[in-house]
Amino acid sequence: MLDMPTVTTGDAVEVPRGFVTYAGNAGIKDGTPDVSIVASLTPCVADGVFTRSLFAGPSVALCRRHLEDGSARAIVTVSKNANVATGPQGDRDAQELAELVARLLGAAPAEVLVGSTGVIGRPYPMERIRAHFQTVTMPPEADFPAVARAIMTTDTRPKLASARAGAATITGMAKGSGMIEPDMATLLAYVFTDASVGGHDLVEMFRAVVDSTFNCLSIDTDTSTSDSAVLLANGVAGPVDVGELSAALHAVCRSLTVQLATDGEGATKLIEVNVSSARDVAQAKRVAKAVVNSPLVKCAVHGADPNWGRVVMAVGKCWHDTDIDPQSVRVSFGGFEVYPRLLDDRGLDELAKLMGSGTVEIDVALGTGGAEATVWGCDLTSEYVHINADYTT
Amino acid sequence: MLDMPTVTTGDAVEVPRGFVTYAGNAGIKDGTPDVSIVASLTPCVADGVFTRSLFAGPSVALCRRHLEDGSARAIVTVSKNANVATGPQGDRDAQELAELVARLLGAAPAEVLVGSTGVIGRPYPMERIRAHFQTVTMPPEADFPAVARAIMTTDTRPKLASARAGAATITGMAKGSGMIEPDMATLLAYVFTDASVGGHDLVEMFRAVVDSTFNCLSIDTDTSTSDSAVLLANGVAGPVDVGELSAALHAVCRSLTVQLATDGEGATKLIEVNVSSARDVAQAKRVAKAVVNSPLVKCAVHGADPNWGRVVMAVGKCWHDTDIDPQSVRVSFGGFEVYPRLLDDRGLDELAKLMGSGTVEIDVALGTGGAEATVWGCDLTSEYVHINADYTT
Repeated sequence: MLDMPTVTTGDAVEVPRGFVTYAGNAGIKDGTPDVSIVASLTPCVADGVFTRSLFAGPSVALCRRHLEDGSARAIVTVSKNANVATGPQGDRDAQELAELVARLLGAAPAEVLVGSTGVIGRPYPMERIRAHFQTVTMPPEADFPAVARAIMTTDTRPKLASARAGAATITGMAKGSGMIEPDMATLLAYVFTDASVGGHDLVEMFRAVVDSTFNCLSIDTDTSTSDSAVLLANGVAGPVDVGELSAALHAVCRSLTVQLATDGEGATKLIEVNVSSARDVAQAKRVAKAVVNSPLVKCAVHGADPNWGRVVMAVGKCWHDTDIDPQSVRVSFGGFEVYPRLLDDRGLDELAKLMGSGTVEIDVALGTGGAEATVWGCDLTSEYVHINADYTT
Repeated sequence: MLDMPTVTTGDAVEVPRGFVTYAGNAGIKDGTPDVSIVASLTPCVADGVFTRSLFAGPSVALCRRHLEDGSARAIVTVSKNANVATGPQGDRDAQELAELVARLLGAAPAEVLVGSTGVIGRPYPMERIRAHFQTVTMPPEADFPAVARAIMTTDTRPKLASARAGAATITGMAKGSGMIEPDMATLLAYVFTDASVGGHDLVEMFRAVVDSTFNCLSIDTDTSTSDSAVLLANGVAGPVDVGELSAALHAVCRSLTVQLATDGEGATKLIEVNVSSARDVAQAKRVAKAVVNSPLVKCAVHGADPNWGRVVMAVGKCWHDTDIDPQSVRVSFGGFEVYPRLLDDRGLDELAKLMGSGTVEIDVALGTGGAEATVWGCDLTSEYVHINADYTT
């Protein structure tokens, strides 16, 4: 077992060598940064995992095509407009955007990935984007925090994390605060490393990590049409131990996942649900998601209401898991058992106190086997409603 | 095709002959009515459909046992306490409650059904319930509105509906405003008729009706541990045309479903989602539920925000339905097409106006076949959060 790698977050993140960045404003919606680029000076081994939405946007389709050969050099992101459900024009616009960036970098369009996030159903303002690119020159250095800010929509703060693996650095950024229930995919999460790693190893470790980090996050059960997680490795730092690299990648993605959950739309509390003694990881994750997604559990956490029965209710929703026997289930909050023990008034007061903290940990033991999983989410608040009742206007 | 039967709602509902009712307060939580009984003077042909929750409560288990012979005479409901997750004591308490009511009615305990709704994880206050039943005498008449009020928890108004089928009357009541995503079951919904109908016909028509009414309702995706829908027919009015009876039953249950959605916790608007040209009814219902359950769609409806892209997003979540082609999907609001047509600013204003009304109708045509389904839900509001952040305390 490797030690858990040290993770640095926020503006203090380290930056892998051989990457440069750009962040600017093309007037997509307002005067805030809305176009950004992360580019490697040399070609990268690359992989991506994308939304399973039937309405996956043109950016996702383009990334899938451009990653078919397992390599890429740059990713450009437009925020404040998702370019989704925009018909054939949307496909042409995504392609043109990749071409504009390729020209800027002296790369091939097929080396450029496109990320897009924001309102659905509006074409890109292409004239403004074209005019903007006529003014852009690529800076010679990398400012990852600036890019992490430029890809935000309703996020209140940028999400950044970095860790070391031998001589290599692995640095990730992510955005997303609503429309988040990734499944085999995620919001926008970009991870860059200067490690040299083979394509097969990279794909294997990235997918395993995404599955136990971003795919264990749910803010509101809604799945974005633009979810994309991308990893680029340019090899500048030379080869490193694969186990060490994988552990660093996991630490970075887990940190980003917790940062995303904490900054869920309107969130005031982080919810961590651990399901143990499950038949398999899939069952553990299914039950954990049922709990973390229950609006009634989320509201109870918000109000520090010791209504633990809602956790039991949420477990009960997994009725296809007929091997779960209510008699064998154990539920606790931060180590404090609430079921099957029946709490008296004093116990309820104790529980209310536990639920008053900024992180509420809910543990469910199923008694159906030896597998476990952890998922992250946040409370449901009036602020979530306010943000989303008036988003486009 | 039969004419749609006329439905009467509220305190004006007609009452089928041969039923008597009781409603009182046993001090379960406060001074409001919390114990109620509907009883037939003669035995009834009966059927019930119940929650699929793994944590189904003792009341549900008891009803399942007592309905095995297809008959029942009475249903007693305790509100403000669900008697769920209360261990073996909960089973004994449900049984004792049935016995107390049987003694009052001069019936067998196996003829009595038990409904229970309220907070999970608290034993019934049995001493208070026993003391209460020593004071009860059964009135000689039926006051359905009083019972509909006594079964309420966070409901803001009682739900009642009646319709005629020949010489018979069919009358239903229901409660429920949160923890509502019935699936093969429902909240508490009781329907009574004086029609004479065979057990086989009754079961067949009841299950079909539940499937297209209560099972097409979702307020918050949370499934109660106490969901019960029960139909009792005492035959006092003699036999009626089965088609006519079935149509009246459907009309009553549909009316109750719409009343339930309209009174969803914190709701200010009714959402009706119609999915048409689907491969089969299951697909239509799945897509319709994805739309009506999307918190982002619900928030947009609340704020009359013309963010129609969220409907497309929600359809996209049904990724196992690989026959759905985004190119063939059509989305409209109350007949006003929003996709694939791309709305300009004037179109968005028009849509915002449509979404300002008390009922928002969303139509999705899938283009995969000829089936259709309608589901009902409500908007997501700050009031939902307020109600549920502070429920037990």
